[in-house]
Amino acid sequence: MEIMPMMLINGAFHHSITPLDRGFAYGDGVFRTIQLCGGLPMHWPLHYQKLVADCATIGIVCPSAELLMSDLQQLITLENIEENKLEVLKIIITRGEGARGYKPPAVVMPTRVLIKSAIPEYATEYAMQGVRLHLCETRLATQPKLAGVKHLNRLENILARMEWRDDHIFDGLMLSQQEVVIECTMSNLFARFGTSLITPDLSQCGVAGVTRQRILGFGRALGFNMHIENIALEKLLQADEMVICNSLFGAFQVRELAQKTWQQQSLATKIRNALST
Amino acid sequence: MEIMPMMLINGAFHHSITPLDRGFAYGDGVFRTIQLCGGLPMHWPLHYQKLVADCATIGIVCPSAELLMSDLQQLITLENIEENKLEVLKIIITRGEGARGYKPPAVVMPTRVLIKSAIPEYATEYAMQGVRLHLCETRLATQPKLAGVKHLNRLENILARMEWRDDHIFDGLMLSQQEVVIECTMSNLFARFGTSLITPDLSQCGVAGVTRQRILGFGRALGFNMHIENIALEKLLQADEMVICNSLFGAFQVRELAQKTWQQQSLATKIRNALST
Repeated sequence: MEIMPMMLINGAFHHSITPLDRGFAYGDGVFRTIQLCGGLPMHWPLHYQKLVADCATIGIVCPSAELLMSDLQQLITLENIEENKLEVLKIIITRGEGARGYKPPAVVMPTRVLIKSAIPEYATEYAMQGVRLHLCETRLATQPKLAGVKHLNRLENILARMEWRDDHIFDGLMLSQQEVVIECTMSNLFARFGTSLITPDLSQCGVAGVTRQRILGFGRALGFNMHIENIALEKLLQADEMVICNSLFGAFQVRELAQKTWQQQSLATKIRNALST
Repeated sequence: MEIMPMMLINGAFHHSITPLDRGFAYGDGVFRTIQLCGGLPMHWPLHYQKLVADCATIGIVCPSAELLMSDLQQLITLENIEENKLEVLKIIITRGEGARGYKPPAVVMPTRVLIKSAIPEYATEYAMQGVRLHLCETRLATQPKLAGVKHLNRLENILARMEWRDDHIFDGLMLSQQEVVIECTMSNLFARFGTSLITPDLSQCGVAGVTRQRILGFGRALGFNMHIENIALEKLLQADEMVICNSLFGAFQVRELAQKTWQQQSLATKIRNALST
């Protein structure tokens, strides 16, 4: 039985958004999914920086870090949280309430929603043996004005996620309209070719996650030559190893994609270790 | 002073959506904007048909027409509506509440929201002298899986609408990434070349509105050869006349776009007359 998530809206404990909120009307906002450890948001400076940047891209002034941290404080002081308990914090920032029509109101009062929920239980085999990926038919549209941003317009990811029902498939690989590898529906990816670690260029579409950013940051120290570039599917399938990553599970080895299988190797473990330090 | 819109959520009078609704979390839903005349939804069969089709495209089973009409009945019996009073009815259908993650819940209970609000006051000169359009820099992304659908992922329209602040500009023309003319931020368009009336092909992006559909239906009876095709901006600027249309204002003549001006002509009046019969 799933425990009802706890939430705070604009600093108050309730569960209600007006349908006039532009987040509901138009998906006019951005969000973050962050791991909480004992009530503390992991890698908060990076997440907050990304939240501010994503807000700026669509012209919203992000609430201050102090305000969001004070919200979180309210959320976590309601219960005794064990020191190392892992939970999920979702932060949604929208352009707030508006009249009918796409034009933003003259004075924007952003809506901020914090939702704390249980961490998903990943099968232990995912960390041990890796995951299977579906190859999605749904393509990501090219939109440089929104590329990289984790905004609330997520219908493409949903259509892609609806393509498979097999619970043994963990995520789905998505290509762009130009047939270039971009990301998975809920994770970014890295492919190893020898000592090179490549992650797709996200300047045209996709979500540039904080975990991807962290791996790009420490990859060289792990002995890899890091590259951001366009990868064709055919090339990806020839990778020596492949991992997917996000802020909740860290990194998982990919063991199967599009009839291609990979033997168990150590890249994901190496990355997970680096992520947890 | 704007009157607070009246709304009904899943058949009940309140103003609250949970932030766990997938409409809020991901823009996972569709909507319609319909003119009410004396409380009656104009061209309801066409609007409902479109609502059902748009829901189906993203895999939602649309609530029945009976249910939506019974909701509307509740909304309008609260007050004495004058016989010909014009108002706006917005209907939003989402995939309902869900857990974290893009995967839809096993059992989907769609959320339906009806919002009744005052009709916008359009400057009388718009009908008399036509409107000015901004040429948007924001391009519409190509996504054949969602093209034509009036879904809740509207960030592109918002970014486009944020490009101008001049109140004398009524709407903005949007091109696709392929530099083909598609629509305006809140309306469809028709261009006349001699006896041909052309409206852009919307199989790659854009919203295929009900008013556009109606004009396509009766255009031939007005003496035009109707065409749905790709139009380059250069060609559009050479049109003899151009009109924009939607369900609220019907049709307006375009008198200015990208330094090009058109003399007052009669196409919009002709179309408005046909729309109102």
